[in-house]
Amino acid sequence: MFTPRPIGFVSSPYKISREIPKGFGVKHEAEGSLEILPEFELGLTDIEGFSHLIVLWEFDRSGNFELIGTPPTDDRPHGVFATRSPRRPNPIGLTVVEFQRRDGPTLYVRGVDMLDRTPILDIKPYLSNVPAEKLRRGWMTEAESRKSQMS
Amino acid sequence: MFTPRPIGFVSSPYKISREIPKGFGVKHEAEGSLEILPEFELGLTDIEGFSHLIVLWEFDRSGNFELIGTPPTDDRPHGVFATRSPRRPNPIGLTVVEFQRRDGPTLYVRGVDMLDRTPILDIKPYLSNVPAEKLRRGWMTEAESRKSQMS
Repeated sequence: MFTPRPIGFVSSPYKISREIPKGFGVKHEAEGSLEILPEFELGLTDIEGFSHLIVLWEFDRSGNFELIGTPPTDDRPHGVFATRSPRRPNPIGLTVVEFQRRDGPTLYVRGVDMLDRTPILDIKPYLSNVPAEKLRRGWMTEAESRKSQMS
Repeated sequence: MFTPRPIGFVSSPYKISREIPKGFGVKHEAEGSLEILPEFELGLTDIEGFSHLIVLWEFDRSGNFELIGTPPTDDRPHGVFATRSPRRPNPIGLTVVEFQRRDGPTLYVRGVDMLDRTPILDIKPYLSNVPAEKLRRGWMTEAESRKSQMS
């Protein structure tokens, strides 16, 4: 397969994992930036018109993968491919950020949930939504409902 | 960085790139399956409840990357990070598929736009949409409007 290389690094207010808000109803509104390396800056041409970007990045500080784990949003274990766990066979994270403005190789964004200095693998324009009436969120909906009954 | 490994392979009706529908208004409704390798099957636990999945995969038959290129949806060039071009510094593709049913290590899905035998890197649950009133699609909206004026 290909050999991953960073196209840049995230600048984030979060220095350690514990600082990142987790769990249900968490709003990721932290501001940060995507600092693209000079040799890839040309690839940002025309990115200004998109309101949201998909950022793919490396979980560079997570441990070995676990096929089953208990996420912060539930007290029951689930398969890694049914969660956003950092401990994945290929440690690739995905975050949809709101794009605010560009200054040369720097993209200022809102909604970062990555650690500071996280390596960025790719940026793609966010183009379309899944029809809301067709979206089902599996165990997450059940877990939310169990938690709200407890509180 | 990490060393990518396939967690499985796509089974798709498309054998060569030319067969994949491209351009504006294209609906990806092709049916296919995600064939997960036996050693990762446990990671699919509880995936059944999600209506849509994000599939990350390798563009394993694309050439070297190009920072600027002309996509099939336009006659003007754009930066690679403002497009879904296969010729990316890290050749990672992303497809949102509609999940139909699971049979052991096989996930039957609708909406494949990958070539047959494409290596799969990761599967994540699709959890939320960007608010529709906030979504802007940059040069794609302009290109659509130019094309519709020409026809």
